[in-house]
Amino acid sequence: MGLDLSSDAAALTAALVDVASVSGAEGHLADLVEAALRALPHLTVDRDGDTIVARTTLGRAERIVLAGHLDTVPVNANLPSRVEGSRLYGCGTSDMKSGVAVQLRLAAALTAPSRDLTYVFYECEEVEAERNGLLRLAGRRPELLAGDFAVLLEPTGGLIEGGCQGTMRVEVAATGARAHSARAWMGANAIHAAGGILDVLRAYSPTRPVVDGLEYREGLNAVFVRGGVAGNVIPDECVVTVNYRFAPDKSVADAEAHLRSVFSGYAVTVVDAAPAARPGLTHPAAAAFVAASGAEVRAKLGWTDVARFASLGVPAVNYGPGEPTLAHTQEESVEIPLIGECERRLLAWLA
Amino acid sequence: MGLDLSSDAAALTAALVDVASVSGAEGHLADLVEAALRALPHLTVDRDGDTIVARTTLGRAERIVLAGHLDTVPVNANLPSRVEGSRLYGCGTSDMKSGVAVQLRLAAALTAPSRDLTYVFYECEEVEAERNGLLRLAGRRPELLAGDFAVLLEPTGGLIEGGCQGTMRVEVAATGARAHSARAWMGANAIHAAGGILDVLRAYSPTRPVVDGLEYREGLNAVFVRGGVAGNVIPDECVVTVNYRFAPDKSVADAEAHLRSVFSGYAVTVVDAAPAARPGLTHPAAAAFVAASGAEVRAKLGWTDVARFASLGVPAVNYGPGEPTLAHTQEESVEIPLIGECERRLLAWLA
Repeated sequence: MGLDLSSDAAALTAALVDVASVSGAEGHLADLVEAALRALPHLTVDRDGDTIVARTTLGRAERIVLAGHLDTVPVNANLPSRVEGSRLYGCGTSDMKSGVAVQLRLAAALTAPSRDLTYVFYECEEVEAERNGLLRLAGRRPELLAGDFAVLLEPTGGLIEGGCQGTMRVEVAATGARAHSARAWMGANAIHAAGGILDVLRAYSPTRPVVDGLEYREGLNAVFVRGGVAGNVIPDECVVTVNYRFAPDKSVADAEAHLRSVFSGYAVTVVDAAPAARPGLTHPAAAAFVAASGAEVRAKLGWTDVARFASLGVPAVNYGPGEPTLAHTQEESVEIPLIGECERRLLAWLA
Repeated sequence: MGLDLSSDAAALTAALVDVASVSGAEGHLADLVEAALRALPHLTVDRDGDTIVARTTLGRAERIVLAGHLDTVPVNANLPSRVEGSRLYGCGTSDMKSGVAVQLRLAAALTAPSRDLTYVFYECEEVEAERNGLLRLAGRRPELLAGDFAVLLEPTGGLIEGGCQGTMRVEVAATGARAHSARAWMGANAIHAAGGILDVLRAYSPTRPVVDGLEYREGLNAVFVRGGVAGNVIPDECVVTVNYRFAPDKSVADAEAHLRSVFSGYAVTVVDAAPAARPGLTHPAAAAFVAASGAEVRAKLGWTDVARFASLGVPAVNYGPGEPTLAHTQEESVEIPLIGECERRLLAWLA
C-alpha cells in the first residue's frame, strides 16, 4: 500500500502515523515516502540511508528548504492512531508526522512554485546526534541542503519559532580524599565539597538576552550528580553534570568561558555542546515567509536542527502544526484543523 | 600437610597465610584447623559449614571465648608470605591469621586453663553480613558462643579496643519536578534542592561521647549521591546516602530518631543498620583481662563482630597482634614480635 498524497492532510498524517518508524527503524516509511515522491515528475529525488531529498529545479531566484524527520520516540501503547473530536491521537502525530504530511502535500501540489523547493525527510532526529540523517547529509552532500531559507516543520503549535538556544554540558568535579567512614576526619568528603557547586547553581540568575528582536531565556542546571565509592568509604570524587542553555548572542566558546568563570575553583570538563542559531529573520526570504504566513514569531528555546542549517549558512525557523508540549507523551495528539492551516499558509507563500 | 601447632607463632602465621582463604573459599584452611584441633584430646570440636568451634569443658567458674575469622580479602599479588627484617608480609598477616595463629597456639598449650575456653574460627567476615559464619552460628547454635567475656583477635596493634560504634545508612531524598532543561523554570531541580541536604552535612558537628570511660568519635557523612534522568531533563529526584557512625550510648532506634530530626523536611529511608556495643569493661572477667594483659585500652570506632557477641549478652573486645592500618592493603604485614607478645599476654591471663 503506497501513500496517497491526494488524501487530505489529516488522513495523510494518520496514514504516516500508522507506519511505526521509531528511530533506527524508519526504513519502511522511507521506502513509502521515496516511492510517493518518485511518482511526481516535477521532482528530482535522492536517497541517502533512510533520508530522502526531493527538489524542484526550475531556476528560480530563491530556494526554500522544507525539512522534517521521519522518526519518532518509542511507541508507548499509542498506536494505531485514533480520532477523538477534532484531535488525532498517536505516536508521532505532533512530533512530527503532521508536519511530514504537510511537506508531502506541498510536494505533490506545488508543481510550479514561486521559489525552487527542496524537501528533506530524514532519519534519527530523536536519538544521539551522530545518527542524525540531516547531520550525515550535511557532511556527505551539503549541496542537497543548500538554500536561502529553511523551514523545519517541527511542532510549534502554528507559531514561528526563530533560531534556537545552544546547549553545553559540562562535568564539574569536586575532589576529596578517601578514608574509612568510621574515621571520616582522616579523609575529605567530596560529596560534601560538591555542596559548593550546588551553591553556585542555586544562586545563579539566568539572563534573558534579546537577539534580533526575540527574547531568549537561558538556564543553568544540574542534570546529573554522581559520587561514592562504597557504603563505608568517604568519597574522593563527586561530579555534577551541568547543562547550560545559552542564547544565540553567544558562541560555544563564549559559553565555555562563561562556565569556567562561574565554576572557577572546580575542575570543569566539557562533555558536549551544540551551537545556538540566530533567528535569521532579517533575511529577505525569512521576512517574506513571516509576512505571508501571518503567524506569530517567538524565540525557540530548545535546541533543534535549525542550528544545523544555520551552520550551513541557511537561516531557518521551526514552523509546524504539532504541539510541542505533547511531543514524547503517551497522549501525543494534534489538533486536526491546524494541519490544514499550516498547509494553506505555506501554500500561500510558495504557490 | 597438617598444621604444626608446636611451631612458633610467627611460623604458624606464615603457614596459615600460605593457605589462601579468600571469603567463600575457606574450606581447605577450615579442614586443616579442624584436624589440628581434633588431635587435642582436651578439646571438644564442632563444625558448622567452614566454622569450627573447640571448647574445654572443665567446669570452671567462667568461660572465655577467643574468636577469629579464617577468611581474607582477595589476594592482591601478595602471596606466598615473606619475611623482611622483623616483619612478615602477605595477605592476611595482619587481618587476621596472626590472631588465628595465637588462638591455635593457646588451644594446644592450655590443657588446664584457669577459665573454660571456647575457640571460634569462622568464615566470611570480610563480606556481606548474611554470609558471616559467626552470625549463622549465633542463630543456629548460640550455646556454642556462650561465655562471660569474648576476645576477638582482630588487628589492634596490641591495644585493647573496647566496644564498637554502630553504623546506620539512610537515604535522604530531595524531590522536584521534571521539565525539559530548555524550559527549566517549568520544573523544580531536585539536585539543586539536594544542596540543602549537603548544607546540613557540612554544618554538622559530630560529638565525642564518653562511654564506660572510653571516648568514641561519631561521624555523619554522605557516602553516595545519585540523581539525574537524562542530559536534557530537570531531575525530579536526588538521593544522598548518608552513613552515621554512632557511639554505644545510642541504640539503633536512637540513631534513626536522630537522623530523622537532623534531616527533617526530607524523606529519610533506613537502608541498613548495625548496633553499637558498649565496651563492657566493667564486667569482672573483662577487668581481669585488662589488668592481666597490661595493654592500653581505647574505644573501637569501626563496627566489628564484637557487636554480635554484645547482642548475645557477651561483653567483648578486640585484641590482636595485627595492625589495623595495614589490613586490606597490598603491603599487608605484621610485626613478628607482636605475635609472640599477644600470645604471652593471653597465656599469662588464662594459664
